[in-house]
Order: sequence, then C-alpha cells, then structure tokens
Amino acid sequence: MVPIHHLLSYIDEDAPFGDITSEAIIPDVNCSAVIRAEQSGVIAGLEEAAALFEYFQVVAERKIRDGEDVRTGDVVLVLSGNAKKILLVERTALNIIGRMSGIASQTRKMVNRITTVSPSCRIACTRKTAPGFRVLDKKAVILGGGDPHRTSLSDGILIKDNHLALVPLETAIHKARAVSAYRIIEVEVETPVDAKKAAEAGSDIILLDNMSPEQIRATVELLRSHELRERVVLEVSGGVDENSLHSYAACGIDTISMGALTHTVRNFSVTLEIQP
Amino acid sequence: MVPIHHLLSYIDEDAPFGDITSEAIIPDVNCSAVIRAEQSGVIAGLEEAAALFEYFQVVAERKIRDGEDVRTGDVVLVLSGNAKKILLVERTALNIIGRMSGIASQTRKMVNRITTVSPSCRIACTRKTAPGFRVLDKKAVILGGGDPHRTSLSDGILIKDNHLALVPLETAIHKARAVSAYRIIEVEVETPVDAKKAAEAGSDIILLDNMSPEQIRATVELLRSHELRERVVLEVSGGVDENSLHSYAACGIDTISMGALTHTVRNFSVTLEIQP
Amino acid sequence: MVPIHHLLSYIDEDAPFGDITSEAIIPDVNCSAVIRAEQSGVIAGLEEAAALFEYFQVVAERKIRDGEDVRTGDVVLVLSGNAKKILLVERTALNIIGRMSGIASQTRKMVNRITTVSPSCRIACTRKTAPGFRVLDKKAVILGGGDPHRTSLSDGILIKDNHLALVPLETAIHKARAVSAYRIIEVEVETPVDAKKAAEAGSDIILLDNMSPEQIRATVELLRSHELRERVVLEVSGGVDENSLHSYAACGIDTISMGALTHTVRNFSVTLEIQP
Amino acid sequence: MVPIHHLLSYIDEDAPFGDITSEAIIPDVNCSAVIRAEQSGVIAGLEEAAALFEYFQVVAERKIRDGEDVRTGDVVLVLSGNAKKILLVERTALNIIGRMSGIASQTRKMVNRITTVSPSCRIACTRKTAPGFRVLDKKAVILGGGDPHRTSLSDGILIKDNHLALVPLETAIHKARAVSAYRIIEVEVETPVDAKKAAEAGSDIILLDNMSPEQIRATVELLRSHELRERVVLEVSGGVDENSLHSYAACGIDTISMGALTHTVRNFSVTLEIQP
Amino acid sequence: MVPIHHLLSYIDEDAPFGDITSEAIIPDVNCSAVIRAEQSGVIAGLEEAAALFEYFQVVAERKIRDGEDVRTGDVVLVLSGNAKKILLVERTALNIIGRMSGIASQTRKMVNRITTVSPSCRIACTRKTAPGFRVLDKKAVILGGGDPHRTSLSDGILIKDNHLALVPLETAIHKARAVSAYRIIEVEVETPVDAKKAAEAGSDIILLDNMSPEQIRATVELLRSHELRERVVLEVSGGVDENSLHSYAACGIDTISMGALTHTVRNFSVTLEIQP
Amino acid sequence: MVPIHHLLSYIDEDAPFGDITSEAIIPDVNCSAVIRAEQSGVIAGLEEAAALFEYFQVVAERKIRDGEDVRTGDVVLVLSGNAKKILLVERTALNIIGRMSGIASQTRKMVNRITTVSPSCRIACTRKTAPGFRVLDKKAVILGGGDPHRTSLSDGILIKDNHLALVPLETAIHKARAVSAYRIIEVEVETPVDAKKAAEAGSDIILLDNMSPEQIRATVELLRSHELRERVVLEVSGGVDENSLHSYAACGIDTISMGALTHTVRNFSVTLEIQP
Repeated sequence: MVPIHHLLSYIDEDAPFGDITSEAIIPDVNCSAVIRAEQSGVIAGLEEAAALFEYFQVVAERKIRDGEDVRTGDVVLVLSGNAKKILLVERTALNIIGRMSGIASQTRKMVNRITTVSPSCRIACTRKTAPGFRVLDKKAVILGGGDPHRTSLSDGILIKDNHLALVPLETAIHKARAVSAYRIIEVEVETPVDAKKAAEAGSDIILLDNMSPEQIRATVELLRSHELRERVVLEVSGGVDENSLHSYAACGIDTISMGALTHTVRNFSVTLEIQP
Repeated sequence: MVPIHHLLSYIDEDAPFGDITSEAIIPDVNCSAVIRAEQSGVIAGLEEAAALFEYFQVVAERKIRDGEDVRTGDVVLVLSGNAKKILLVERTALNIIGRMSGIASQTRKMVNRITTVSPSCRIACTRKTAPGFRVLDKKAVILGGGDPHRTSLSDGILIKDNHLALVPLETAIHKARAVSAYRIIEVEVETPVDAKKAAEAGSDIILLDNMSPEQIRATVELLRSHELRERVVLEVSGGVDENSLHSYAACGIDTISMGALTHTVRNFSVTLEIQP
Repeated sequence: MVPIHHLLSYIDEDAPFGDITSEAIIPDVNCSAVIRAEQSGVIAGLEEAAALFEYFQVVAERKIRDGEDVRTGDVVLVLSGNAKKILLVERTALNIIGRMSGIASQTRKMVNRITTVSPSCRIACTRKTAPGFRVLDKKAVILGGGDPHRTSLSDGILIKDNHLALVPLETAIHKARAVSAYRIIEVEVETPVDAKKAAEAGSDIILLDNMSPEQIRATVELLRSHELRERVVLEVSGGVDENSLHSYAACGIDTISMGALTHTVRNFSVTLEIQP
Repeated sequence: MVPIHHLLSYIDEDAPFGDITSEAIIPDVNCSAVIRAEQSGVIAGLEEAAALFEYFQVVAERKIRDGEDVRTGDVVLVLSGNAKKILLVERTALNIIGRMSGIASQTRKMVNRITTVSPSCRIACTRKTAPGFRVLDKKAVILGGGDPHRTSLSDGILIKDNHLALVPLETAIHKARAVSAYRIIEVEVETPVDAKKAAEAGSDIILLDNMSPEQIRATVELLRSHELRERVVLEVSGGVDENSLHSYAACGIDTISMGALTHTVRNFSVTLEIQP
Repeated sequence: MVPIHHLLSYIDEDAPFGDITSEAIIPDVNCSAVIRAEQSGVIAGLEEAAALFEYFQVVAERKIRDGEDVRTGDVVLVLSGNAKKILLVERTALNIIGRMSGIASQTRKMVNRITTVSPSCRIACTRKTAPGFRVLDKKAVILGGGDPHRTSLSDGILIKDNHLALVPLETAIHKARAVSAYRIIEVEVETPVDAKKAAEAGSDIILLDNMSPEQIRATVELLRSHELRERVVLEVSGGVDENSLHSYAACGIDTISMGALTHTVRNFSVTLEIQP
Repeated sequence: MVPIHHLLSYIDEDAPFGDITSEAIIPDVNCSAVIRAEQSGVIAGLEEAAALFEYFQVVAERKIRDGEDVRTGDVVLVLSGNAKKILLVERTALNIIGRMSGIASQTRKMVNRITTVSPSCRIACTRKTAPGFRVLDKKAVILGGGDPHRTSLSDGILIKDNHLALVPLETAIHKARAVSAYRIIEVEVETPVDAKKAAEAGSDIILLDNMSPEQIRATVELLRSHELRERVVLEVSGGVDENSLHSYAACGIDTISMGALTHTVRNFSVTLEIQP
C-alpha cells in the first residue's frame, strides 16, 4: 500500500481550497453511496480509494478485492459517512480506480493472450508511466498478472543504446557487476551478434529491441548454439502491439515488455452514486 | 509554468536512490543529445522538460515552442551537458512530453473536427486526469486549443446529480450564489425540463449529461422559446466520442466536454538520442 | 476543512524540536481544559483547533459552531486528554481561532453595517492575506458572511491596471474569454468610460478602483443609460473603510471588497485554561 | 534568510494552477516595474521579495535595505524581467512586504516611545503570530528594533499558569534546570510574592502577567529589598497598549512584551507598478 | 514525540515502492511478534517505534518505558497485527531503537562515570548528529540523562572561533545581548585570559575548548579570583573521551560536552521475531 | 547526487529559524574558509557539502574528489563567499562529510583487509542505516569500495527467517520468481541443508546467517558436491567483525555483509576554518 500521505497529495491537487460546491450547498448529513463498475474487467485501486475514504471517516466496505474480475453494474465499494466527505474524495477515488483498473484489465488481456501461445512467457511494463503515479501504475500491472520490471532508475541496471554510445558493452557490464552483486544486469541490443556478446559478457537479461520475429528467432538460435540461452533471460520490446503479440511470444523468449500498458491507458469506467 | 520543485518530485519518483546504471558505468563527460518526435502532432511539455534539464545544468535549446505542430523526425530540444545528468532526466522528460503532447494532439484534432461543423463550439476536458499530473494535463489541453474547464473542486461551482440527491436544484443554486459573486455556477441536468429549471434559477452554465442529439436539440429549442438560451452557456457531456462529435456539435451548443481527453491518453512518441 | 497535514505544519513551526517546557516539567497525566472567549464576536477556527487536538488524542467537545456569536466568557471548546498534548497544541490552536475569529467578527460587522443601507450589496475580501494562511483567512470571511472573492491566481480572471499596461482592454477580455468558458472575467477600471468599455467588451464583473462615490454613481448611471448595468456585477474597491462604507454601499453597486478584512486583522482574544 | 523553498510555498498557495490571467492575456515580453511605498515607516521583507523575483529570473535591484526608513512614494525595489513572472510573484511579494513592514514599523514606534522613558527597556513580541509566517513575523520585529522572544516551544523554557496548575513552581524550575544548562528559564507570575518565589528558585526571567504599574513597582521593590532584582530579567505583559506603554516602562523593568505586535498587524501599504 | 509524518518519511525511505518481498510471498494473515534486546543498556526509541506500528494498525504493547534499563533477552515491545505491516515497519523501527538506545546507553554510562567524581557536573551532546535524525538523537541523550545542549542554530547564541575571526569578542557579546534577552549567550575560548574576558563581557556560558585539565583548573582559579566564577556556567569540550572524562570532571566545571555521543554511535542490538 | 532539496532539509533541521548567532553578530562581509581533514582516510560527502554551499552562493573549490585518500591536515574544500552563509552551512556540511568519510574509510579498510585473503570477495553493507540518511550512507559505502546491497525494501527480494516463519521456503521462492524476472532473489538460511534447498529452489543469492567458518565451509562443499555452487552467490552475515573477517573471507564465499559499516559509524574528523 502506498502511504496515505502520498494519496492525500492527490486530494490536495483536486481541492487546494476545499470543495466549494459541497461546502456551499450540502447540509451536514450522513449518507450512503456505492461505487459501481460500468464495464467488465479487472478491478484495481480499491485499497487506495478505501484508504482515502477511511481517512475522512467514511466507512468503506469492499465487495470485491483488487485483482478480481468485475462485470458491468457490479458494486465494488459501499460507502457510508458524511456526505461532504464522500463528495470531496469522489473524483480522486474514481480517477485512481479508473486508471488502475484500466491498466490491470489490459495487462490481464495481454497475459491471457500470450499464455495460449507461450505459457511461460511474461508480459512486463516499463518506466513509461504517468509522472506522480508510478507506484500505482506498477501495482496495477502486478494486479493484472504482469511483471512490473524496474520500478525506477535506482533498482536495476539497464544498459541501453544511449549508454553504449558512451562506453563499450563489455566495459559497461564489467563496471556494473563491480558495483554490486545485488543488481540484475540487463543490456539492450539490436542484433543477434550483440546479444551473443552481451550474454558472453555476463548480462543477466538481454533486451532485444525493435527486432522482427525472424531476427529474434535467429538470436535465440545463435545463443542456443553457443550454449548461452540458459544463462540469460530474453526480453523483447518495441513494435509489439495487441495484434503482433502472439507472433513474438512464439519465438522462444521469456518476457515481452510493452510501454503502452502504462503510457497509453484506456480508462476503466466507474461511477459513484449517492443512495437516496 | 509549474514550479520546479513540483517537477523535481517526478525525478525523485524515478530515482529515489539515484540512477545506478549511469553512476556505475558512465564516465564524467559532457555530451550532446537531441529529443526527436517520432510521430506528427502538437508538441507540449517542452518547457517542463527544458526546466528539468536546466535545473541539472544541462543546456536545453528549444527548436520549437509548445503548442506548435511537429512532424516525424523533427528535433524539438537540443541538449548539451553532463552525460549522467542527461540520462538521469531522460525518462521523466520523455514521459512528460509524451503524455502532454498526446493530450495536446488529440485535443487539437477534436477542435479541428468540431470547428468545421460549429466554429464557436469549444472542446473542454474534465477533472478525470492522472492523479499527480493534473496541472500539466490541463495545460496540455490549453496548448491543444481546448478549454481546461474547472481545474479543481476549489475554483468553480458544479452542481451534479449526487448533489441534487441531497438538496433541491433551486436551493442549491441559491445557496451557491449566496456564497460568492466570483464563481461560475454550473448545473448538471438530464432532461430539457430540468435545463429550463436550472436556467430560470440562474445557473450560468448548464451541463446536458448523457443526452442524445435529439434531446439536446429539444433542450435548446425549449430554452430559446422561453428566452433563456442567451442567458446560459450550454455544455454537453457523456457518450461523445470522436465519431459522434460532429452530430453533437451541430446541436447549437457552446461546449463539449470529453473526459477521454485526459483519462484515456494516447502517448505521443518521442525519443532521446545521445549524439556520438 | 483544510487537510490535517496542512494544520500540522503549524505545529511543526511552533515546536520543531517539541515543547521543551512541558517535556521537562509536566507529568504524564490527563487533565481537562477549556477554551474561552475573552470578548464578544463571531467565533471561527474551532473546527481546525478541534482537529488538531483530536490528532493528538485529546477529546475536543464543541460548545458552539463556527460562525456563531459568542460573548465574553463563553466556553467554546472543552478539552480532555494528556496534559502535554494539550499544551503542545495550545498556542497554535489559539492563534488559529484568534485570527479567524478576528476576521469573521470584522466581516460580520461590515456586512451588518452595509445591510442596513443596501441589503443586496456584499462585502468581499481580497488576496491580501497572511502568506501560509490563505485558505483559513478565506474561510473566516465566509463564516462572517462575506464573499471570499478569488482564492488564488488560478481560479478567476482579473485584469488589472498592470495587465492593461501591457495589453489593450478589449484584446485582454477577448483573449481571456477564448481560453475558457468556465472562468468569471473581471476588469479593473478607474473611469466611467473604461467601465462602459469593459462592459461592452463582455466583462462579467467590473471593479471600480479608487473612485469616489460621485464617480461611482456616474458610472452606474452611464451603464444604465446604455443598458449595460444588468449585464455586469459592479465591485468597488480602494479607499473604503468602516466609516465611508455606507456612502459607497448606497451607490447602487453589488460588492465592496476590502483588503483590510484580511491584511489588517484585529486578533480576537481567546484563552485556554487547564482545569484544576 | 528563510530558505527559498519555504517562500515558494507561498507562491504555490497563490497559484496552485498558475496565474490564469497572465497566461491567457499577457505576451511573452520583458518589462520593468517598481515597488513603491505608499506610506512612511520601516521597510521589511525586501530580501524575501527579491529572492522570490530572482528565483523566477527577474532582476531585483534594492534601492534601500530592510530595516531602514521609507517615505510615501519611495521606490524600494526596481524589477526587470519577464512580465508574466513579475505578475506571478506580485501579490505574494506585496503581502510579505506589507505584513513585515507593518510589524517593523509598529515595533519601531513602540521602541522609540519607550526609549524616551526608559532607554534600556526592550519591546518584545510573543508567539502570537500568523500560523505559517512565524519566522518572518519574528524577523520583522528584529528589523524594527524589537526582541523576538522565544521563537517556538523548542527554544526556551517558559513556565506559565497552565503549567503551574499541574506542578508546583519550585518543582517546575528545578526540573527545567535539570534538563539543560543551555535554556533560559522564565516563569510567569501574577503577584509580587510569586515573583520573589520564582527569583529565589532560580528563574532567569520573571514574567509579570497582567499586573498594574503599581503592582509592578511593588514587585521591583520587593525583589530589590531581598537583593534579587539583579539576578533576574523582569518582563511585563498583558494589558499594555500604545497609550499605557510609558507608564509600564517607567516601573524599572527590562522588557515589555506585546502580543499585538504580531497578532494585530496594520498592513503597510506598498504597490507594484509596471513601467510603460 | 516527533510528529508521525516525520517518522513516516523514514518508512518512505525504506520502501519507496513498498516491500516487494512481503507483497510477493506473504499471505494476508495476522501474527504476533516481539522486539527483544540483544544486549543490556538503556532502551530508547520505543515510543517512536510503537507509533509507527500503530500507524499501520499493528497493536504495540510496551513492556518497558523509554529510558529504563534492559538486559539481554528482555522483550521490549509485543506486536500483533497484519504480518505484512509488521515486516514493512520492522527495519525502520529497529534502526530507530538501535541508534537511540545506543546513544542513551552510552550517555548513561558517561553520566554515571562523571557522577562519582563530580555529582553536579553534566554530560552534554553537541550538534554533531546524523542529518535527518537530530530530534531523536537529542531525545536519546535526554533519556540517557544527558543535556541536549543547543538543538539548532536557531535556539541559542554560541560564539565560536570562526565568529571571532570576524568580530571582536566584546562586540560579539554586546551585539548578541542587544538582539534578545531570551537567549543564553555562550562563548568559546581557548585560554584562561579569554575566559576571563568573556565572563567580564557578560557571557552566560563559557566553553573551554581543547584545553588540558591543568589549563582548565587555572581558568577556574582565575575566574574565582576575580569573583567571576559564580556568574558563568563552565563547559569543557574537545579531547575528552571515556578514559579522560574523570580528570576533566574533577576540575570544578559544570558541563562536559562530547560530540562522540551522537557522531560516533555504537548501535544497540535489538531483533524482531515473528511468533510461530 | 542526492537532489538539493533533500540536502536542504538538513539545513532546515539545523536552522528552523535561521542562524541567530551569525545574524546577530556577523557583518555582511565576504570571506574565505577551508575545510580540512583532521585525520587520514577516505574522504566522502564533498559533492553534497559543495552543493549546499553553492546553493547559498558560496564558491566551493574541490581540492580532491570523493573516494580519494586524504591525510591529516589536507584541505578538501576551499570556500569563498558571504560569511553568514558559510557559517549557516558549516555544521550540516561537516556532519555530512564526517559521517560519510567515516563510513567510506572503514569500508575501504575492510575491503583492503579482505582483498589480501580473498581478492574476489566483496564487503557489503545492509539496511541498518541512520534513518533520514540512507541514500548517503549507501553512497559512502560505494565510495569506500563496498557493495551497497539492497537500498530499500523496494528493490530486491530478500526472504528472511521472519518470512519463513509464515511461508515455506520453496513456496516463497516460487512466488517471488512469479512476480518479476527483474529482481534478484536472496534467501537467508542457517544450515547447510537449507542452503542446498534454497539453491535447488532457484535462489540467486544465499545468505548464510550466523554460521561459523566451519559451517560455511561445509555449506560450500555441500553445494559444490551437488554442482550448485556456481549457480548462486554466497553471502555471509552475522558475527563478523574486523578481527574475524579474514577467517570468513577464506571460506570460498562471495560477499560478507556487515551491518556495522553503517549502524556503528566512527565519525571522520573534519574542521572548517575561516581564513583571516
């Protein structure tokens, strides 16, 4: 769970001087309300939404758990408390649930699609997240069954083309390994030959960037023929979309990372209704 | 411009313990780099990206201004400075530009589409933004030619169905008006009759929620026949998408608000390349 | 209600390293205490004070509600809890109540005075507030019956002389209107002619700055004669004090804004007494 | 100097979503502006105002230093830079200068008044400051020639009636002394006898609270007769206003503390004018 | 007690993206746990640790109070609640207890050692604390029976050699005294003659820096012979360690300050064990 | 580099209301100063100290780089700028350099000692750091040649005895692996048999906790005999101190982690001298 003071910063953003509408027109009454899914998919963000309501003394009863499937019309949270407090939190809570459920649902869809082709292959996201919302974007991917990949620049070594413009591949891996035994080392390559070089130099993960399924198959083959395939995790990235996913998954790789999971999110529709 | 300490919180999110890759493998050298558009559209977020680079002593030369059109391959920023600093800021800057340009481009597209049908009709966004990124989501809409609508619960009165479940419409408007002369008052209605009631009660803006083009036309007609049309701004919301936009715009209304502009953002592709 | 973490920053300010007196000399005992008004007027800040005490597990019983009248000697809050916690919060709570009640009381006085002359005329405050205390200064004005005016530069368009030194009036209004339909537009003028120009250009509110009652009357007359009076809200500002208030109110205007309501606050005297 | 990030929080308060007026209507031009005193008195807050302008790349030339006298019409700061930035900072800067100069001017007036009666007697303020502005309230008192007294609950021991309701005076002083040799110990008393008791128990400062000049004189005499006067600093508080100040000052005491210096501040009028 | 939001920043530091281990592998179960001392000494930090656990809804039963003695194997806190929450807080809580108890234990040891030689002589710490942990370092010293000295640059005047390189001693004391009657004034000297000068100029405390026991005795004697000894508190600092402590304490001084109390802390070993 | 606003929070801690000594007595003059090592060892923290001085417009010339050796008397930074600013930053800067250099020096000493016995064996630190200073504690270890290990609960999987009290080892590893391919998985064991079990279950790193050199050798042998040794990194922790280090290093392991590197820091003595 993200700490409550982090979630409260979202309330501050939506109400720097309070909710002037409710303060002006709503009496100090208690009421009930429900949050309802308006589509089917994987729900996420309920824990965060509930924590926000509870911070404002609104009771939030969970009717389902994050990561579970919902259908159109399902009630996911039942609220009861001060009407002004419910309305103060409403939009922030819905925005959190909407974005997280959108991510979780799309991730689940991709995971299901890939599983039929290659059961052991994973779907991962990237660091292409909404600034200020990274931790929840990553959590939503996990709830959808995806791999969160690196959460930040601080928790994994990923040597990319821009690094290799400044330092040779072997030197880079060697230096990275020298700093810590507690960091996965991943290298981004664009050709089978570089993939082999990275594997020989001791990279834990090799990211095959913007390669066609044919090139990827050739790379897998090259690594196998040199008995390097088992030593590395193979990740594919770039140019993979919903439609081409299966053809990449069938190439004998371990992970497919898709920036779109978190950079191009389809909102999941939820609504809050005050009960009469 | 959003204050730099706000933007820096995005860097903190991406590097709570620094960029361990660059710190491990990159020498302390200066280099140049370019940020390039990988698609065409309306660019946005350059001011924020440049401010971040400049905070880390990287010179950032703007080749174009926020809100202008770019084409695939256009260089938008030229950077020069310490290589580690450029790489530290890279992903945060690209995420900001990618999201903001995505919003600005889609907004511009909707604005252009509506203009041909109804030149005076506006496209507005809503408060369905990415938590932690609201101020830049709204700015991107403005750069795309859209109307930012309310920025938060603190700056405009918007009386919605959930309020009207707790207080009658006329009372609500009366109370809201009594608080301040400096706040626009908007009321959400779902029928022509309620629209007329809201106009008579003195609402400045009437939000026609989830109504069909036919219902909207009937509402406009009803207001006209009672000489209420000129007194109010008419906003339409709900069920409007790219394809149905023109049929709503043709109904004689003033604004169409689309949550999707900021809740379902297609990322705009930009890349950073270290120059050899 | 302002979020508790905002109020806690005031405790941090008063006790960055704790309350060294109480920590040194007070035993870990529970006690009762009362907060008492030492003058008559309109009480305000009780919700904020109570929230702070409650954050530190001190029970705070409200004997009266914010915005109600009190007399010298009235108990407004009854506290019971750990003595050290009560003393830790004491000064911050009293400072909040003292300033807010001072503002609310003076606002109420001005509102009452104006009501006898012109029942529909409002008293508004400005953005001349104590930095770091804006949201509570504004709330106190509302509790006193005043209009909070703009809360910040972000929630209303106000075109002042300094803007008009850089851009012509009509252009300014046109540009402002083009950005959003959801913002009141107000223009500051100093002559009847400019008031007419602003009204014709579509300003929602016209701020008559530093004009004498005679000039104001002439302005109202000019607007009426051109059938512009009904289209605009007329605000008067500058040179209005307690004594001249009635002569301005009688000029047929809608609002009088007084910076002094929040920039020159007479503290409302309250005291906290530990009960033996 | 208060750190810039503290001052920036005041800008955030005044512009959570930017300055929508200037962003809408002002071109990206540079201009000059002056900040001018509209009354005479002691100027303060210029360093803070200048720091804010400079943070936004506006050159701020000081024409006078904080703590010096100004007359109506004097220019105190000359600004040059981006017009939007100047307007963004304007109100925050004026609010800081207005409040601080108001405090400094009133403090200076009290100091001058007392000096004629009792040259060695000081004027001190209290912790009755505007929440969120304490550090600058205290600085303004110093600039006016006053004594800042305790800045917070963390930096001096002050044993008040509420403490003495819970612990006997001698015990309190003994316990306080036992914690640290680095803290001044002050005790609030209401009778000559208690003053003597406090002095005998080793209090460094004795605060004579709400006593008449006669009682104060009797207290001084009592202390002298027991050779305790030289051991303690005598502070008077409560019921002292501008008019009664001289009669208290003449009683042979060391300090007069006045809550009104910071809790009831008369704003000092300053204005910012864009130069054509 | 340090405010909870301050303590929460330590959790943020240890878990910017949550506890990925527990989130991955631990079921949502409740459990019990104990925190146990693994050595004997003075325990400290329990209040802070308990507050953190309680913030996460973990019940924390204190088996002993801060400042009391513990022996190897003693249980100090008994926890019960959600297993993931206990594990989330574990390391932060142990780090706080470990550092604070280490400081409190060493302080107590020094206090006990000095008491046998000179019962009235105090042990004080300095501002040489771990950045970000000052308030708890100081609290630990107090719990160990030591004097916290100045907590920051804001709460006491201490004129050191670096100041005296820029301003003469008498001027410095005079100027400091002129600012406020509410600040202890301390001067750092390195010779008996300067000590006498400082005492004559009115310093409250004299810090004898880096002087040998012989020099210190000579200083005490010089002050006595001029009847200045009773007027000042004498502090010794520099070159004092555990072994030489008694020889300094015997010199007739009031305080010995030791930077090592907080700059060179031996961790106090505590462990948390989940109960089966 | 840690962001400047993080470092500034240390200044806030040391000067919540400014540096009252310098403000009272120091004229507004520029001066030079040097920071000098008072012992030999590995210097660290200069970048952070310099960044703080530079933030306050003090020029900070580096005479040596972080991570290099210094001897008693070496000047490490030469400062020039406003005297008050230098004194404001002094203690915070020295505390940072003192703690970081202390850690770096001790780490280097351990690294050198181990290198003679087992050149490929690393010295690592743990998460037992000073709360609020983690990022700099870790950086100091790196500068000393040590391995920073996990920086937080968010960046590596470490399954400890407290986890294994709640979930079986194989299940734990399986679940951890299922979440992400981008996380090192480490398991803490206390017997050779469990080490073998962990290696077979796919742990990347095995932490041999509180085992004797004999047990460790037996574990290495057991793993070798099952051809598991090459698959895992072996870390030893618990009961290792300066004296026993070599006997552990000789056991054929990869890493020795020592909590004492950051939980029991010997301060490195540095001083700042204003130049006459």
